[in-house]
Parts: sequence; C-alpha cells; structure tokens
Amino acid sequence: MESHTIGVLGGGQLGRMLVDAANKLNIKVAILDSEKAPAKQNNLNDNHVTGSFANAADVRELAAKADILTYEIEHVDTKVLEELEGESPFITHSQSWHRIQPSWQTVRTIQDKYAQKQHLAKHGIPTPDSRGVGTSSPQGLKEIAQELGWLPIMLKARTQAYDDIEPALQTLSDRPLYAERWAPFRKELAVMVVKTKQEASLDNFEQSTLAFPTTETVHEDSICKLTYTPPREVSAKIQRQAQDLARRAVSTFLGTGVFGVELFLLEDNSLLVNEIAPRPHNSGHYTIEACGISQYEAHLRAISPDRKILAGATDLVVNAAVMLNILGGPQPDSHMLVARATEDIPGARVHLYGKGEGRPGRKMGHITVVGKSMSELEQKIHPLIVLVDAVRAHRASSKTSNDDIKSTWSELLARNPVPPQKPLLAVVMGSDTDLATLRPGLELLDKMPIPYLVTITSAHRTPQHMLNFGKAAASRGFKAIVAAAGGAAHLPGMMASETTVPVIGCPVKASSMDGLDSLFAIVQMPRGIPVATVGIANSTNAILLAARIIGTSEPAVQEWLAAHLQQMDDENMAKAARLEEQGWQDYKKLDQPMPLSFK
Amino acid sequence: MESHTIGVLGGGQLGRMLVDAANKLNIKVAILDSEKAPAKQNNLNDNHVTGSFANAADVRELAAKADILTYEIEHVDTKVLEELEGESPFITHSQSWHRIQPSWQTVRTIQDKYAQKQHLAKHGIPTPDSRGVGTSSPQGLKEIAQELGWLPIMLKARTQAYDDIEPALQTLSDRPLYAERWAPFRKELAVMVVKTKQEASLDNFEQSTLAFPTTETVHEDSICKLTYTPPREVSAKIQRQAQDLARRAVSTFLGTGVFGVELFLLEDNSLLVNEIAPRPHNSGHYTIEACGISQYEAHLRAISPDRKILAGATDLVVNAAVMLNILGGPQPDSHMLVARATEDIPGARVHLYGKGEGRPGRKMGHITVVGKSMSELEQKIHPLIVLVDAVRAHRASSKTSNDDIKSTWSELLARNPVPPQKPLLAVVMGSDTDLATLRPGLELLDKMPIPYLVTITSAHRTPQHMLNFGKAAASRGFKAIVAAAGGAAHLPGMMASETTVPVIGCPVKASSMDGLDSLFAIVQMPRGIPVATVGIANSTNAILLAARIIGTSEPAVQEWLAAHLQQMDDENMAKAARLEEQGWQDYKKLDQPMPLSFK
Repeated sequence: MESHTIGVLGGGQLGRMLVDAANKLNIKVAILDSEKAPAKQNNLNDNHVTGSFANAADVRELAAKADILTYEIEHVDTKVLEELEGESPFITHSQSWHRIQPSWQTVRTIQDKYAQKQHLAKHGIPTPDSRGVGTSSPQGLKEIAQELGWLPIMLKARTQAYDDIEPALQTLSDRPLYAERWAPFRKELAVMVVKTKQEASLDNFEQSTLAFPTTETVHEDSICKLTYTPPREVSAKIQRQAQDLARRAVSTFLGTGVFGVELFLLEDNSLLVNEIAPRPHNSGHYTIEACGISQYEAHLRAISPDRKILAGATDLVVNAAVMLNILGGPQPDSHMLVARATEDIPGARVHLYGKGEGRPGRKMGHITVVGKSMSELEQKIHPLIVLVDAVRAHRASSKTSNDDIKSTWSELLARNPVPPQKPLLAVVMGSDTDLATLRPGLELLDKMPIPYLVTITSAHRTPQHMLNFGKAAASRGFKAIVAAAGGAAHLPGMMASETTVPVIGCPVKASSMDGLDSLFAIVQMPRGIPVATVGIANSTNAILLAARIIGTSEPAVQEWLAAHLQQMDDENMAKAARLEEQGWQDYKKLDQPMPLSFK
Repeated sequence: MESHTIGVLGGGQLGRMLVDAANKLNIKVAILDSEKAPAKQNNLNDNHVTGSFANAADVRELAAKADILTYEIEHVDTKVLEELEGESPFITHSQSWHRIQPSWQTVRTIQDKYAQKQHLAKHGIPTPDSRGVGTSSPQGLKEIAQELGWLPIMLKARTQAYDDIEPALQTLSDRPLYAERWAPFRKELAVMVVKTKQEASLDNFEQSTLAFPTTETVHEDSICKLTYTPPREVSAKIQRQAQDLARRAVSTFLGTGVFGVELFLLEDNSLLVNEIAPRPHNSGHYTIEACGISQYEAHLRAISPDRKILAGATDLVVNAAVMLNILGGPQPDSHMLVARATEDIPGARVHLYGKGEGRPGRKMGHITVVGKSMSELEQKIHPLIVLVDAVRAHRASSKTSNDDIKSTWSELLARNPVPPQKPLLAVVMGSDTDLATLRPGLELLDKMPIPYLVTITSAHRTPQHMLNFGKAAASRGFKAIVAAAGGAAHLPGMMASETTVPVIGCPVKASSMDGLDSLFAIVQMPRGIPVATVGIANSTNAILLAARIIGTSEPAVQEWLAAHLQQMDDENMAKAARLEEQGWQDYKKLDQPMPLSFK
C-alpha cells in the first residue's frame, strides 16, 4: 500500500497546503520551485527540485522523481509536459491512468483565457461573450464594441494573469488580448469541483464530478478578498444550479483533480461561468475547516489511481464559513498586524504561508472562521475586514508605519461598527392594540439569550408586506415567528402559508366571544399549513414555545429553558411547603396577580 | 513582531501536530528527538537537535537554540531543566516570563504518579485514594488493602508509564510502586485545559484557565481507543462540572500550556481526577477539526508571553466529534488498512504520523469525524471501529495477513451491523385507538427525510412511563414530539411538563363534543408550559409542524417542506385552471375525499 510520489509544479501557498494534506496521508510530495518556496518548508525530503515550473529541464528533473505530475499554478511549460506524455503517458504498472493530472491539454486551453472561453462556449456552457482582437494592441476594439453592441466592453490579456497586485500592475503591452462583454452581475460565486475520473462520455459527468458548496466571493483590486459559504442572499436552488453548472463545465476538460470555477450571478438570477482554474483555488481555502474533506486532500485523492472520494465528503460540516485573505501592506510586517489581531476573535484560524517579508498586495496568508450562523461570523470577522481595509488604504505608501495603520483602523471602526446580531425570532402583531397581550411574553423573552425583532404586519391592512415578510423569513435566518391576532385572526395562518419557518399563533381576546373566535381562526387551519396554537391570550406560552423550537439547535437556549422549568418546580414546592406550614386560613398569595383567565 | 523559537523536548505525533499549528502561525520550532522523528518531517529548519529528551547534554543543546522550552512527552530529564532555569529563568528581554513552560517542577510532580495524586489531594482535588508501597516489590500490599478497606486495589508503577503497548508489556520489576483504590466508574471523561498565565493566587483560576469541551474516552488495553465529544449520556451540568474540576486541578501546577486531565465519572455522578498530562494529549486530537482553536495552537499561544486566547475560542464549532486511534497491527502496513478504509466514510479525516512501519499496538495515526449529531457520527465511524477490532484480534500473530484481517472484519460486521439512525421525531399516542387519527400524518412523515419513532404512552394508564419518556427526550436527541389525545387529553401537556423539547398536541375527536373537549384540554395550558396545538384531528398539520421545527436545523427537511409548499401551490393552480376550463357544472373533484371537517 505504498503511495505514489506526487510531483507538483509550483510551491506557493497552494502547494504548501497540498503538502499539509499529503503529510496527513503519508503521501510523498516533490516540489519544483525556488529553494525557500512555501511548500518546501513543511516537507522535509530529498526529492524537491530547485528551479522553475516554466523551465523544461527542471520539469523533466521533477518528472524523473515523481510518479504523478500535477500543478498548483497554471503558468507552466505545457510543451515539455506534452513531450513527457508522449514518452510515457501512464503511471508505472498501469495502461490507463495518465501520469499528468489534469491533462497538459486542459492547462494549455485554460492558460489562454480566450481559448478557455471558446472551449466553454463550444460545450454549451454559458459564459460572457468574447472575441479575439489580434495581437498586442487594442486596435479595432471600438469597432467590435459597436458591431456587437457590447457596451461596456472589457479588454483582457489572454495569458499570464496573476492575482497578486505587483505583476498585475505591469502593463498589457506586447501580450495577446481579447475583448469581453461586461457581465452585469449582482454577485460573484465560486464552486470547487472534484473530477475523480475521465469518463468516455461527457454525459456521465454526474458520476465522476463532485461539487463543494457554492461560495460567494468578494474581489477587490481584482484579487479575492473574502469568501462567504453558503453565499448570502442566494437561494438553495440557485446554489445547486451553480454547483451543477460548475460540474458540467469541469467535465469538459481532460484529466482529474480539483478545479476552481468562478461564476457570475446576474440580476435575473441566471449564471455565467467566468473563469476556471485547473488546481486548488483561493475560493476553496475555507474547505480546510468547513467541509468533510479539504480541496487539497480532494486533489491528492482525485489524481491518484487507487483512491476515491464518495458523495457527501465535500459537504459542509458546519453551518457557515468566512475566509479573509491577508495581503502584504506598506511595511514588510504589516500583514502580521492582521494575523495577530486574529487572536482577539475566538475561533478564527490563521494560515500564514511562510513567505517571509511582505510586499504590498502579496498574498501572505488567510483567516477562516466557521460557526453556527453567518450572522455570528459576520460579527466576528468585521473588525478584521476593517483592519484589512486600513492596511489597503496605506498600501502604496512605504512611509506609513504600522501605528498609522492601527489609527486608521480605529477611525474606520468608529465609522463602521460591528453589525448587530441578526434576530432568530420574529414577534409580529396585526395591530399595536395586540401589544398589551404580547407584553408578558416579551418581558420573559427579554431575559432569554435570543436576539429578536418585534414588529407590526397586518393580514388585512398591509397584506403584501405580510406576504413579503413571510417569503423572506427563512433566508433572514428566523427560526420561529410568533404572530398574535384577534377576531378573524388571519395573520398567523397567512404568514404560515408563505414560509417553512414554524409560526406560533397567539389568539388575542377581541371584543366578543371571550377569544374563542380568535382561537378557532388560528388553530383550525386547512391540512398542509400548520400553525402552532397556544391558549387564548397566553403570550408567555407563545414565547416559551418559540424558545423550545430555537433550543433544538441552540444549546444555550435549551439550558435556559431547563433552568426555567426547574425554577417553576422549586417555586411551586415552596408554595406547597408554605401552605402546609401556615394552613389555608392564613395563606397569602405572594406573587403577581395572574391575568383573568387563570384566576 | 518576530516570534520566539519554541524548543520541544520530544518529536513524536504530538510534536508533529504542534509543528503543524506552528507552521500556520510562522512560529519557528526546534525539535529534540531522533533523526527521523515524526515532528521533523513537516518542519524544514536548521535548529533541530538529534538526540534524546532524557539526555542532559542534548537538552542543553536545544536550550541554546530556543527562546522557550516545552514538552510533548513528560518522561524528560527535569534535573537539567532545573539547572537551566537556575542559570537563566526568563526569556530574553523579560523579568517575569519563564522560559520553561510549564515549569519543570510541574513535570517532576506529574512524572511520579503517586506524587501527582498526593499533590492533587493536598489541593482538595477529588482523586482516587492511593498510598506508596515503598520500593521495587509489592510487599505489604495485602496489609494496606486490609487496613484501608480498599478492595479491589490496583498496583501501579509511579513513573515511566507509556501508553503504547510495547513498553507497557515490560514488567514492573525494579520500579517504585504505589497502591490505588479502584474507582468504580461508569465512564471515563477527559478535559483539555489551557493555562494562559501563572496567577499569584490559586483562587484566580477562573481568569487564567480555559477548558475545551468535556470528552468521553474509551480505553482498550490501557490505550485510548476512542473519544466522543460531547460525551454520550452525560448531562450538560456534569460536563460543566468536569470542566470546572479540570480547570481547578490544572491551576495548582506551575507554568502555562495545555494539560490533559483524565477523569472518572462514578455511578453516583461524582467526578474524580485520575491523571494529568502537562502537554497536548490524545484525548484532545479532536480539537483540530472540532473546536475554534486546536489544542496544539492553544499550547503554542499559552506558552508564549505576547499571545492570548480569549474565552469562547475553545468551544465546539460543530455539534459532535468522534476520534478513533489507528494502532499498528500484525503486519508493518496493517494500520494502512484502517487509514485507507476511511476513504469509504464521507467526511472522515485521517491523520497519519509518518512513523514508517507499524508495530503491534503502536500509535500510527488517528481518524476524526465531525458533524451535526452524535447519532450520525456513530453510524459513520462504526465500520472503522470494527476494522480496528479486527486488527486488534490479530495483533499478536505476525503470521496473519491483511487479507485475514479483512475477512475477520467482514465476520465482525455481519455480527455487529451499523446501528440505526436515532429518531429526531417521536410520535406518541395515549391509546392505539388514536392511531386512526394519526395515520394521514404518519403517511406523510414516511415521505420525509426524518427518522422517527411511533409509540404508545398514556398519561393515565402508564403515567410513570410517560414522565420518564419526557425526561429523557432531550438527551435522546428528539427535536420534536407529536402527542395525540382525546377527551380529557392530558398527554401533550403532561409530556410538555417534563421536557424542553417542543411538544405538538393533536386533538383527537372523542365520543362527544366533536373534539372541542380535546382541543381545549390541549391548548389551554397554564402559563409556563406551552403545547403547540393544531386543529382537531389534523395529524397532517401536526407532522408538518414537527417537520418545520426540525427544518430549522436540518436543511434537507427545510428543502423538502419548501418543495411541498410549492407542490400544493401548483396543484391548486392546476385545479383553478381546470375549473375555469371545464366550468363549475362539469368540474369533478379528482383527489381523495377530504375528511368530514374539511368538506
């Protein structure tokens, strides 16, 4: 059961995290890169090659030391890979498993972004319209834009785009270019896809591709700044559509491994594939902490002939994850400000890449925080995002000290404080006259560890607002809705018709029938739409029921409720003892008078 | 912001995982151990020392290369550490932060298990009674046992206990011994504690100690086999008591760092401290995937003068975690059977230690699986536990092949299949006559992705059984209870009095009053005990309400419900279209007749 030695072209941070995964599986990895490359620091062996992944002789030296060749960067010499495959296409003792994974053809297509887009279009994958504009100058661009009606239009380099700022600042001179229609997206998404096998037919992509969760990416200066998983304000349906599109796109490329698929989510909720990377990707860093398998282990297993990955492995094991990149700032150690500030955020995990001194805009590390809800994570990560903004504000000026950055941080934080926690419980009423009935419950709610919202939305006076409130309830993160209404009492039932969130109906006593009308109107719902009904005017029980529901996934709330039950037990036992001691003749009721219905 | 270089005495798997954590923080680590030690393989630097942590000269060589000294094993030469502290107690540029963390005095006390127990007893920490029995032979043991009334009694070596089988098989000859009263525990627990500061007073332990979650440990052949976090069938209250006791115990030892505290939970739910390790510990491996910070990063931060760990960092970020050790088997690669079988368990993560060839009982790696519920994890890990059992069954026989192990695995699995998933929903009825009312709801439940239990428990015929059912409901993992009852209809309310789990009451129509009696008996609960009441005989809504509650924490259930709402919408729109097309005169109702109350 000896493992194959994996040779990796490139030894940056992606290679380093690949090595981390390989270490845990006892897989040997040989890195081709400069002597102190990040991926060599956590990997003590004699197989590394000092050189460049763009140099044919160095790639040949690596190939001689490795069973399988793969990449952590796509700007490699594909010509020598083509030759190597010609000389010996398969791994030792195999007639079918290619030793270059994914194929050099895949990398060659992807290297040229225009060719990549043409490839996707050919396979029916929706992608922004694009057109080659010849060689090194943008002549004719205006004509293309007018001819095709593409306005605005983007001019891009076909090859050698980096995502660190420094090389990107170089001009586009002397490079082949292409024109691309601007896609008016409302969000950028990304999906890491694992291709585990090369199927004979593209129709079989379901069998051999697995998708990691759909992720929201936020870019700044064309560099990934943040990822949010799952994406904020994107329905489960669109998330699945993004995964399926990404899998289909990846299936069109030869070979195995993980692929980073960047997508645009347009205003009309349609999706376009923007760009694909044939390797682990910045948008998949979060998988280390958040998924059943990391993108790095997934890559190692996908490119190995005798390993497998089962469906479900790529799923989230937490509810939410946020990743924040740490870029170099004005001073060689400015990035360490961000790394060290992470100690103030319980649960945030730092990954530094061992690159030594920072340079402005260089990727020096990242931070991942995972947890129960996106709302909790947005609060936690907020101060670090603002610190990253402060570093960026000073990035270009080498005269800025780290103390300057810190004072900018304080200023920005004062202007842009931590967002409030999102409510888990909504308490709604049809009219402000219902507030009197709700008051005892709300007073109890104030003592519970539950963030809540109290508002008015009437089934009859603001029907559209009420339906909208219901429609958005699940994606806003509400785990329960308490709705109070009297008389015809439509609010709880109508709200329940528009959401899958449990709705608790509290019947309010109206002017006649002692509340029976409200009770029947709330409890006698048709089959299919349930309302959890409590006793007439019993808002205390409505709130306690909401707390019990929230307590099924919030241990702190369940503990509060257990203590509350015990307290009621104790109080009643004390009353019993006092009654026995004083006798019924002298016994005086000590607590607050109960409302009428319980006297 | 340069980091201190950490010198580690020992370079086994704990050191290796310490290095993993250090790599991510760009902290330099120098390892003192043999040349190919596991902790040197993921750490390329020139500061390592080849030698032994029990050799004074080697320890001095390490000290010369490191700012701070720490341990990953406690069997070190404390005499040379005492001398080193005498020569230079503090880190450079500090007058207060000791460069040996935790103190050599702590390690010296802990090395001698009898001295350790005496130390704990002196500080009022409950621990099994023990007594020294002089030197190398057990003379007088019987007299001690009779004198103190300790039966059964255990004879233990005071020093140099290893937890790998091989050294443990050596006899106890020529070693100082002590006698210990057998503690009749119902479970073994463990808590990893982080001590971040040396307080002047022990009373301040609350400020400077943090506890990781309480963990259940399962030992076999005196070696940790499994850990379950949170512990199974242990209340939240006992878990907190274990954390507090562990923190108090650790606060009595000098210096900072993480400590592994092993505890006995006795039949009467009291706790004893069994043993303490002044270093990262096998029972804390799960923290890598399951907590906001790993025990390894916590150790690095706790022993560093300028770093901090905030409360909350040690909390779980997942709901549950299981860790399984991989020990060496009869063949040098038998452990790889377990490592590779992990590929069949989606989400299980392997950590191999790079120890090369396995030896029977040697710790070669571990597996961690984290997820939403302990029930899910028990199912996932089951086949691997059985494989570990198969390896163990053959461990002593070097003639056994890996194929023999596999066939034993199959035999054991056939006898001991994967446990069923634990139900999330309980549907209870007072009498089997209520089943007719529940049937439409149960038929719908069968189509949902919800494991459930249906049973009978009567408030009047089996009141004690009903109360017990309610008491155990939360710890059994139920997220909702549907209770059907008619007439006086006490079941839902009584059940709700004994649990914090949401109870849904379904009023059954009894022989008179058309169900109104049942409805009022269920809905008009006193303040403090809520029952979520649905319409008379509407079991469909009772089940749908339960699904909505479960859906607040189970996305698959919420998706099912969203699709179900959409389906009802579509069906009604289709009916509308048909009615408009056919006219009311010719329209025929196509679906099942609705029950009377909805006609």
